[in-house]
Amino acid sequence: MTRRIEIYDTTLRDGAQGPNVKFSSDDQLRVVAALDALGVSYIEGGQPGSNPKAVELFARARDMDLKHARMAAFGSTRHPKSAVEDDANLKALVSAGTEVVTIFAKTWGVHAKEILRVSLEENLDLVSESVAFLKAEGRRVILDAEHFFDGYNDDSAYALEVLRRGLDAGAEALVLCETNGGGLPHQIAAATRAVCEALPDAVIGIHTHNDSGCAVANTLAAVLEGAAHVQGTVNGYGERTGNANLCTVIANLQLKMGFDVVTPAQLERLSSTSHLVAELANVTPRDHAPYVGRNAFTHKGGMHADAVRKLKVSYEHVNPELVGNRTLIAVSEMSGRSSVIQKAAELGITLERDDPATSAVLARVKGLENEGYEFEGADASLEMLMRKARGECASFFTTESFRVRVSHEKGDLISEAIVKMNLPDGEQVFTVAEGAGPVDALNNALRKALEGTYPEVRDVHLEDYKVRILDGKLATQAKTRVLIESSDAVASWNTVGVSGNIIEASYVALLDSIEYKIFRTRSNSKEPGEA
Amino acid sequence: MTRRIEIYDTTLRDGAQGPNVKFSSDDQLRVVAALDALGVSYIEGGQPGSNPKAVELFARARDMDLKHARMAAFGSTRHPKSAVEDDANLKALVSAGTEVVTIFAKTWGVHAKEILRVSLEENLDLVSESVAFLKAEGRRVILDAEHFFDGYNDDSAYALEVLRRGLDAGAEALVLCETNGGGLPHQIAAATRAVCEALPDAVIGIHTHNDSGCAVANTLAAVLEGAAHVQGTVNGYGERTGNANLCTVIANLQLKMGFDVVTPAQLERLSSTSHLVAELANVTPRDHAPYVGRNAFTHKGGMHADAVRKLKVSYEHVNPELVGNRTLIAVSEMSGRSSVIQKAAELGITLERDDPATSAVLARVKGLENEGYEFEGADASLEMLMRKARGECASFFTTESFRVRVSHEKGDLISEAIVKMNLPDGEQVFTVAEGAGPVDALNNALRKALEGTYPEVRDVHLEDYKVRILDGKLATQAKTRVLIESSDAVASWNTVGVSGNIIEASYVALLDSIEYKIFRTRSNSKEPGEA
Repeated sequence: MTRRIEIYDTTLRDGAQGPNVKFSSDDQLRVVAALDALGVSYIEGGQPGSNPKAVELFARARDMDLKHARMAAFGSTRHPKSAVEDDANLKALVSAGTEVVTIFAKTWGVHAKEILRVSLEENLDLVSESVAFLKAEGRRVILDAEHFFDGYNDDSAYALEVLRRGLDAGAEALVLCETNGGGLPHQIAAATRAVCEALPDAVIGIHTHNDSGCAVANTLAAVLEGAAHVQGTVNGYGERTGNANLCTVIANLQLKMGFDVVTPAQLERLSSTSHLVAELANVTPRDHAPYVGRNAFTHKGGMHADAVRKLKVSYEHVNPELVGNRTLIAVSEMSGRSSVIQKAAELGITLERDDPATSAVLARVKGLENEGYEFEGADASLEMLMRKARGECASFFTTESFRVRVSHEKGDLISEAIVKMNLPDGEQVFTVAEGAGPVDALNNALRKALEGTYPEVRDVHLEDYKVRILDGKLATQAKTRVLIESSDAVASWNTVGVSGNIIEASYVALLDSIEYKIFRTRSNSKEPGEA
Repeated sequence: MTRRIEIYDTTLRDGAQGPNVKFSSDDQLRVVAALDALGVSYIEGGQPGSNPKAVELFARARDMDLKHARMAAFGSTRHPKSAVEDDANLKALVSAGTEVVTIFAKTWGVHAKEILRVSLEENLDLVSESVAFLKAEGRRVILDAEHFFDGYNDDSAYALEVLRRGLDAGAEALVLCETNGGGLPHQIAAATRAVCEALPDAVIGIHTHNDSGCAVANTLAAVLEGAAHVQGTVNGYGERTGNANLCTVIANLQLKMGFDVVTPAQLERLSSTSHLVAELANVTPRDHAPYVGRNAFTHKGGMHADAVRKLKVSYEHVNPELVGNRTLIAVSEMSGRSSVIQKAAELGITLERDDPATSAVLARVKGLENEGYEFEGADASLEMLMRKARGECASFFTTESFRVRVSHEKGDLISEAIVKMNLPDGEQVFTVAEGAGPVDALNNALRKALEGTYPEVRDVHLEDYKVRILDGKLATQAKTRVLIESSDAVASWNTVGVSGNIIEASYVALLDSIEYKIFRTRSNSKEPGEA
């Protein structure tokens, strides 16, 4: 029987410490849903004791129907000066209402003494009492042993005693945290081995950072020595050089080392999960990322495509489909027929393999991907594209012209937009509106033009607006991808636009959003965004 | 005595296989000079047999006065159908005129048979004859054993025999190449150990790729088992997921494992070498890169700057100065006087603790941070703010008004900007320009208005443009933060602008960039961006 490894994701807590990694409240829920579908065991949502956003997340996550994952609230052992039952942090952890609570404890004597200002013995009591308190409140408890490896090097007996106190008080996993990063695999292996020998009945966990470029290898080394609980973040986000990249760790454990981590179907979600989290965090995906990166299975032009196909095993360390990625020949080769058909089915559209409409959809997707489109986070745009290619969607309006003007004069900043739209009955509407900025003005003008004929556009709210510069090196001449999230009373949906001009890219995404709403209202189909 | 490890750089050959990694002929020479200064032993320059640019590089490099490094030409064993003395590739290797020649050989039977279409015995002869030929021509020879680990798993005796033939014919290093990538440290360690035991007198080398996210760890594992020659690329450039990152490998071997790799003074060049190579390759530097990345030693969060200073060893795995990097306090979080003073010192500005100007700077920074500014990636904006608050910087121009218009009519998309600027002598300039988008048009109009008085603005290039929506939930009414990277022949610098209007945010960042350039040119201070 293969050994089971449980995955503990901390993208929303430790990952969000990374520079420029930010998730809105709605984005956090989308990350939770994606992680659950990927099959992780735990999702750490943040510190309810210090972060109101985490409190909100735990409250909202309670209404989600999670299939695999358990939410974990994160905090510290009790304050040295509080009684355990009065400790504000522990109380906040309990009121987060999660099944699992993770608390971190000092394992390194110098930190206990210099930062907590407690004796070594008192520090042990903090651990015992805090774990026992949370257990008594009915929580499953995970103990993160902060600075474990530094502490172990400094005083191995004390570091082990911290773990033992956690275990005795009821912690179900003891996590060796390499807080400073910078360890090397042979060092991590030796310490983990010693811990697993000293505490043979405990579930030992590992939490690494990438300061020596070995976060993944350090994690694998600990698992080989007996660790059965692995912490990390999607895409390796985290402060400084980042945390262990769970995308790489999961694939290595499952495909290379034969551990039981997630199901094959869950593993196929690895690449799309990586992409989705990057999009939501508004961080450019790392094309060179192992397994999930756009270039991870890209073979260069010089090599003949047939040769790669024939001797694939010589050029690919694993089959990319196992992790939801694909072989790319040449600079960019687009989604194959099967993945488009699969995606269409997800959106409720049946595409037949040999139908000419399927070829039309495929050609259109490839063409747009060449221009810089990515439909990963823009299902509504993809659905409209498919329905139009199949002739399922009437034309509700066309644009005759649009204009946007921003002027700054004598301290006044004015943004104004003008649109001229053609409606199906031959009518032409010509409207002007102001806004907080050029895109807001455009949105206002567009709604004013269309709401007479399509009153449902009044219900559309723009929820989120994201801008990504595709080739930053071209500076202000670079292509821009705009992602817009819209909602009405019932659902929310996402659309995308790409152009060398940010105003045009925004306009395209706005039009898609409005068209989607009108289509959904007027077809007898399900509500917008409903799965 | 510590064991000596020799570094073999293949940035210009294997690294240049990476997507978007391109070096001009002049850039190649700058890379060679930087690598020599860093203290690598070998610099692989490319395949003279198939690449005219490599021939030119070797010719030009002969005139360089390299202190440490030897140039290496790269090619394959003789063609199966050529006599060794008539082989075009071997002749090209000889005429490259390098002291060192590296040839790759098939180690995996299936490749010898299916790609070279020779018998296993013939393949061994190719190795012996090719190495012997190059030795007879007076070259030092390194043998790259391609697909070594796959070959070893398939038929270890044969793989070892390939190495032995190379050794017997006079190769001075036998390099185990993990061509497919995807190996894990314990696997690489086991095979390397077996090779070192079988060939105790040979210098064994290691060449890894990052397909399993373990290129660095695999390299270290091989060195621990006896490898004494390490191949890799600066910043880990290379096809797919890249090669072993020499910046990380060198630092780990020297600082963490006690090997003798480069001198301390050479090690201090690590960060600047990484940056230079990224600039020359025209690739955005990876801020999260271990040791050399901008964020590798960045501290943020609720942690007080004083605490970091006091317990530095608890938060940094090595002293950043050893690798030419530095501790950064994330300015977005700077609340206290000490972090502002420390940051100012980094920028070459002395702020006295009790100076009223220091309070003015602090108040201004806090005010802007409240508006959504973040100076983390915008040192030039922060420096201009500090200098203005201290009255060190004259006003070079003010804006009377600006206007931007984007119109889309009959398929034509036009972006145009108008600026009216006041110059110090009372002159007013009024210019109009078009651009690829609204911000590009604004940039063009601004330069047109200022270049008469300040010709140095012509030298400014916009290198990168980033947009972040601060509170996406406000959708198109959200605040927008724009980050711009600019450069001239000497340096690059970053500026920031924030507004509810993306055009105004971009305008603010553009103005800061131009002001910074003018200030640096006109003050008798150091060059822009110079540390």
